[in-house]
Amino acid sequence: MIKTPYLLFLGDAPDALAAKVAQGIKDWRPDHAVAQFRMEGCNADMGLPDMTLAEARAAGAETLVIGVANRGGVISPAWKKVLVLALEEGFDLASGLHNLLRDEADLVAVAEACGRELHDVRVPEVEYPIANGVKRSGKRCLAVGTDCSVGKMYTALALDKSMQAKGMKSSFRATGQTGILITGDGVPLDAVVADFMAGAVEYISPDNEADHWDLIEGQGSLFHVSYSGVTMALVHGGQPDALILCHEPTREHMRGLPGYALPSLQTLRDTALPLAQVANPACKVVGISINTANMSEEDALAYLAEIEAEMGLPAVDPFRQGADRLADALAAI
Amino acid sequence: MIKTPYLLFLGDAPDALAAKVAQGIKDWRPDHAVAQFRMEGCNADMGLPDMTLAEARAAGAETLVIGVANRGGVISPAWKKVLVLALEEGFDLASGLHNLLRDEADLVAVAEACGRELHDVRVPEVEYPIANGVKRSGKRCLAVGTDCSVGKMYTALALDKSMQAKGMKSSFRATGQTGILITGDGVPLDAVVADFMAGAVEYISPDNEADHWDLIEGQGSLFHVSYSGVTMALVHGGQPDALILCHEPTREHMRGLPGYALPSLQTLRDTALPLAQVANPACKVVGISINTANMSEEDALAYLAEIEAEMGLPAVDPFRQGADRLADALAAI
Repeated sequence: MIKTPYLLFLGDAPDALAAKVAQGIKDWRPDHAVAQFRMEGCNADMGLPDMTLAEARAAGAETLVIGVANRGGVISPAWKKVLVLALEEGFDLASGLHNLLRDEADLVAVAEACGRELHDVRVPEVEYPIANGVKRSGKRCLAVGTDCSVGKMYTALALDKSMQAKGMKSSFRATGQTGILITGDGVPLDAVVADFMAGAVEYISPDNEADHWDLIEGQGSLFHVSYSGVTMALVHGGQPDALILCHEPTREHMRGLPGYALPSLQTLRDTALPLAQVANPACKVVGISINTANMSEEDALAYLAEIEAEMGLPAVDPFRQGADRLADALAAI
Repeated sequence: MIKTPYLLFLGDAPDALAAKVAQGIKDWRPDHAVAQFRMEGCNADMGLPDMTLAEARAAGAETLVIGVANRGGVISPAWKKVLVLALEEGFDLASGLHNLLRDEADLVAVAEACGRELHDVRVPEVEYPIANGVKRSGKRCLAVGTDCSVGKMYTALALDKSMQAKGMKSSFRATGQTGILITGDGVPLDAVVADFMAGAVEYISPDNEADHWDLIEGQGSLFHVSYSGVTMALVHGGQPDALILCHEPTREHMRGLPGYALPSLQTLRDTALPLAQVANPACKVVGISINTANMSEEDALAYLAEIEAEMGLPAVDPFRQGADRLADALAAI
């Protein structure tokens, strides 16, 4: 569990895209984002107050989150200087970088001396159990996709926001690096040892109040041959009561797999639902989330109407339209 | 890759069941089993010559394989003494125990001093790639089960034996500890990090001659909520041309999961085949392997005839009947 709120470290991000993690925190957990810290050459801006380390500490920030991808895979000397000062100033550090904070001897030494924590969210911090399949109380929703990177995390976060606004009980359950940094907790599922994947999903979505919804972040796709095992563990470990089908209509082949066509939404439904019903016979497909980022507003709305008619389920782009109709579909279960 | 042939260490095995790994090696790779080493109190017997360490070395044995489960989860002082002497005698050691050889400081020190290797087959020794889904040459068969522990490894090993006898080209590809110790190579798939599972399966079943069959050892079941992700990675990473359905008809619920019923063979077929066809559109279900160990001969034969008629596919118990009919089904593809 990463202490909140955060100071968002944007480093020398060359553009906004390099600071995607910081953007996610700002968009989905604005209460966690006290301020931003930018170095010379930084071209990203979250619209947050720029603060020094001392100012951000005084404003209550507990953890400096590296909200930016590093260039060339190394933590540069310029970054390092700020990170060491941050530890000395009383910050914990959190990072989703491939290069781990814990592999930097100086950061480890300073963190120990100052009694601070280093969080590498790519590394599981819990010894997860093997899944036991026992039915848990409370309700769970899982977003499953025709492909990787079609908006599953975005859909779950948008649902959480909408459900909170409606006064429903919900928790976003992160299963990837970005989701963990956004919320401060979760499991980096793709880094968990195979035998414990489903157990890790059970662990992060435990028994809860009968009317509480866990919105479990999906990963991969049952149709993506590189990562389908991770998706399968979510479908069974998550015991979802509800599935939401996610799709990006303009993609020409499965991500990173030329020659592999995307399945139709019908095929996704007919594959994922019976598998989910192994763990939860009551599971239903309740809605469809379409990422229309690459379509005009007009084309997007026409496409959504078409899919809605074809599938007989609410079909929305949560980015363009919000997730209220999906939240209503969950409320109706 | 573990050096063969082996000296099979049976230790103080209280009964034959405790020496299952040694039995598997003796049954499936008799050429690998030079001799057995038994300590006082050992009640297991592979029917191999009992040899001292020196005699077994002289007879050509390269690796001492711990073919027995240890009691209480620790490597006892009595075992330790033999293992140290074996290293000094020039043996490598191989083990599938939960307690790792590499965690025993004395074994590590002696192995280093003697230039010998310690193989803990529960620990992946390769940095596997992420699966790329590229079509490989040669043919592959995967056994998939209605449940865990229904005879998938046995089926693949029996197929390998039958195909070799028929002069077909085949390789058993181990994906679990016992299979790795039997053959000396493979991947402990349940210990691989999630992102690399399917890549590990691609790695162990690479391009091959057009008429060569990889017989990939199955793991778990698509219907076993604890391990289904591992199975999914085999179905996609394996790119099977042929599936064999495995079943144990007397089981009352999924292994370790009270309340979870086993699927029918029809349901297994209708679930596994479309998923396999994502990676290999030509994949077919070619046969059925039934573990009838808990049935009388008469009941077993009646059951097999019934399943064969119902499913329209050869249905055999490879233990009672051999796997020749399954091998013929593969040859016919």
